[in-house]
Amino acid sequence: MVVGIDVLSRLYRYLTPSEALKILIEGLGRREYLIDVRRALGKVLAEDVYSPIDRPWTNLSHVDGFAVHSKDTLGATSTSPIKLRVIEGVDPRNAHEYSLKNGEAVFVETGYPIPKGADAVIPVEAVKVVDNYILVYSSVKPGFNVTPRAGDIGRGKLVARKGTIITPALQKLMIDLGIRNVKVYDNPKVVIIGVGDELVDEVIPPTTSKIPNSSTYMVKGILNYYGANIVKTMILPDDPERLVNEIKELANNVDVVITIGGVSMGPRDYTWISLKEKLGVAKCFRGLRIQPGRATSGLRIGNSVVVNMPGLPQSTLASLVFILLPLINYLRGIGPYIKLPYTIAVNRRKIEIKKYPSFHRIRYVTLENKNAEIIAETDSYYVSPIALTDGFTIIPPGKTIVDENEKIKVYHLPPVHEIPHLEILR
Amino acid sequence: MVVGIDVLSRLYRYLTPSEALKILIEGLGRREYLIDVRRALGKVLAEDVYSPIDRPWTNLSHVDGFAVHSKDTLGATSTSPIKLRVIEGVDPRNAHEYSLKNGEAVFVETGYPIPKGADAVIPVEAVKVVDNYILVYSSVKPGFNVTPRAGDIGRGKLVARKGTIITPALQKLMIDLGIRNVKVYDNPKVVIIGVGDELVDEVIPPTTSKIPNSSTYMVKGILNYYGANIVKTMILPDDPERLVNEIKELANNVDVVITIGGVSMGPRDYTWISLKEKLGVAKCFRGLRIQPGRATSGLRIGNSVVVNMPGLPQSTLASLVFILLPLINYLRGIGPYIKLPYTIAVNRRKIEIKKYPSFHRIRYVTLENKNAEIIAETDSYYVSPIALTDGFTIIPPGKTIVDENEKIKVYHLPPVHEIPHLEILR
Repeated sequence: MVVGIDVLSRLYRYLTPSEALKILIEGLGRREYLIDVRRALGKVLAEDVYSPIDRPWTNLSHVDGFAVHSKDTLGATSTSPIKLRVIEGVDPRNAHEYSLKNGEAVFVETGYPIPKGADAVIPVEAVKVVDNYILVYSSVKPGFNVTPRAGDIGRGKLVARKGTIITPALQKLMIDLGIRNVKVYDNPKVVIIGVGDELVDEVIPPTTSKIPNSSTYMVKGILNYYGANIVKTMILPDDPERLVNEIKELANNVDVVITIGGVSMGPRDYTWISLKEKLGVAKCFRGLRIQPGRATSGLRIGNSVVVNMPGLPQSTLASLVFILLPLINYLRGIGPYIKLPYTIAVNRRKIEIKKYPSFHRIRYVTLENKNAEIIAETDSYYVSPIALTDGFTIIPPGKTIVDENEKIKVYHLPPVHEIPHLEILR
Repeated sequence: MVVGIDVLSRLYRYLTPSEALKILIEGLGRREYLIDVRRALGKVLAEDVYSPIDRPWTNLSHVDGFAVHSKDTLGATSTSPIKLRVIEGVDPRNAHEYSLKNGEAVFVETGYPIPKGADAVIPVEAVKVVDNYILVYSSVKPGFNVTPRAGDIGRGKLVARKGTIITPALQKLMIDLGIRNVKVYDNPKVVIIGVGDELVDEVIPPTTSKIPNSSTYMVKGILNYYGANIVKTMILPDDPERLVNEIKELANNVDVVITIGGVSMGPRDYTWISLKEKLGVAKCFRGLRIQPGRATSGLRIGNSVVVNMPGLPQSTLASLVFILLPLINYLRGIGPYIKLPYTIAVNRRKIEIKKYPSFHRIRYVTLENKNAEIIAETDSYYVSPIALTDGFTIIPPGKTIVDENEKIKVYHLPPVHEIPHLEILR
């Protein structure tokens, strides 16, 4: 016989993504450390953060204008203004050192504390200055143009919960509250290995003997956005001995080892089977209830996770969405899940699921005129649907028909800077 | 008099964002260069890209299995299989060198070319091997399990238009097509200057005399995501002479100079007026029809753009959304516009616009149970609405009431890794 495959030992026993993730992350540790808040953008909080101060720390003026006692303005009208005496020589930046008396007004600047006793600020453009008096043309209420102490956030109040991603705005808020360091989760260290004798790290037109190792770039680009720390990318030939030795070594030093390719039923598809048998791995799964991507497999080696992604590009991407991104999210202190922005669209062409109806499906979608057109079923070898469509829809297990005119969700996988047909701000 | 302001020369003449952008970008050049496609992630194409090859370059097998003549399988059934002779000694990776004759079958591997003459591949698990024959139990059509030449993309076909952002998937596709270098736009060089005597580059609780320069971090974090190349951040005191000299020098070397603060009507709000007068700038605007952020101003100095953002945080962010992001998008080869992901939500609390009804408004929103709650009108000094809400809605000019239960769009400003209440993939 030409081919001698020990089929039984390689057979898929398809699990749902959540069953597979449970095997991979059970008892898996996460690293935490203190970091200067100015370098913490994109990290995930490993502790609840509370405000150490009142913000603002005292009553501030919201405008450039005159701080007054509001009750002094009672009865002021455009025809019968009230006259208040301007106290000269008060530094507008230190006006809080002055105690305002009845009938007085003091010039203050935006964002600076108001004088003691003052409870309102009249904008400079709303008054008329005559000699050392101002004329006020309408009455104001207490608190007018005053930003009150603790109005933004009070001392001891919760700022952000453990598990929150530090966005640029949250980073700013924590700096404004004088929070110097925060405890965050360390980004997971990841190695990506392209597996196959034919792979080369060059940009060349593919041939029978040489294919560029391009999927590594796609996986790296997406994982980077999700906070993975890609410490290395490499190519390994179809050599089970070498593969096992390299991965065993890497698993001691990184959190996640990703292999792409060599997970199918062919005679050279050693990746998963060699690891399982030669390392005697107990925590593992072989096959996922997703399509494309059902050959996705994985193992736990100590405190590291190995995910074996299939090599056909659409399968690789599905594997990334259902297993890798939830796993990375878990390791960096969020998930084990993934949230994606989506567009609601109208399905243009009926989809029928014939094989594997109990699987999750990814189908690529092109959006048009605020409706959606599902493109024809494509070969998972093809890259153009991934690169040239606007996103994908997910057909849940058990659903075998998506009708014409049915509403579907089209998911967009970041990094996405432009999502066609979303609102345009011009 | 306490304050001596030349009010007239400082007065706002509010323009719409698109009017202001037109002044800033008219005749503005963009830099292009050739880059190795492997380093081009996130760049914008400065040329249309066409495929130099057919992908795949020949007919490939989609499975591990036996390449056959489909017509040889006519009439095969589960009870009456057809017998085909397996040609041994053919390298499955070089099967295309073999010419298949009638009645023959050759083992081929996934992703490798099929023999000459073959037009279908039967998966290994669908046949029974007996001696050097296979038994085929159902007839197959031409093209079965064959990935045809040019099926993914044909030679000469448009891959991506000028102005397209290179996503991880597009990068992979171009590598797969053997496209080594692409012409892209250079990322705009940006300097961010915090203006104010009180600013310090430390994380401290704010006081009357010292405030951390925190907005620079927020602006930098967001602009980085949008492809700005932040070459420098700095703090300058309220010294018009120094400000003008520094900005004049910077404008020779970078594309965009951003100042934050010092644009209001106070006596120390020199930023815009000093530049306009001391440099005799003609292309400029003073004030935007947006709220918050109406103090936003800008100037063109040669081939550089200076944007003066207001310093109150909510104003800074509005200014960023309506002017800075469209400007950066323009410079890197896309808009002068910005597209943001959004969630449709139901407004919980009536909003009434009292001042500036002809302005665009930003209002922060917290999403709950797939509805939206508009938080109470807030002071633009406050940071917590920016940091702790889920996004913002934009109320267009002329709209003065947003009713309870009215549908609104809640925009999410990237980088956003998690958008609450969007679909969760578990």
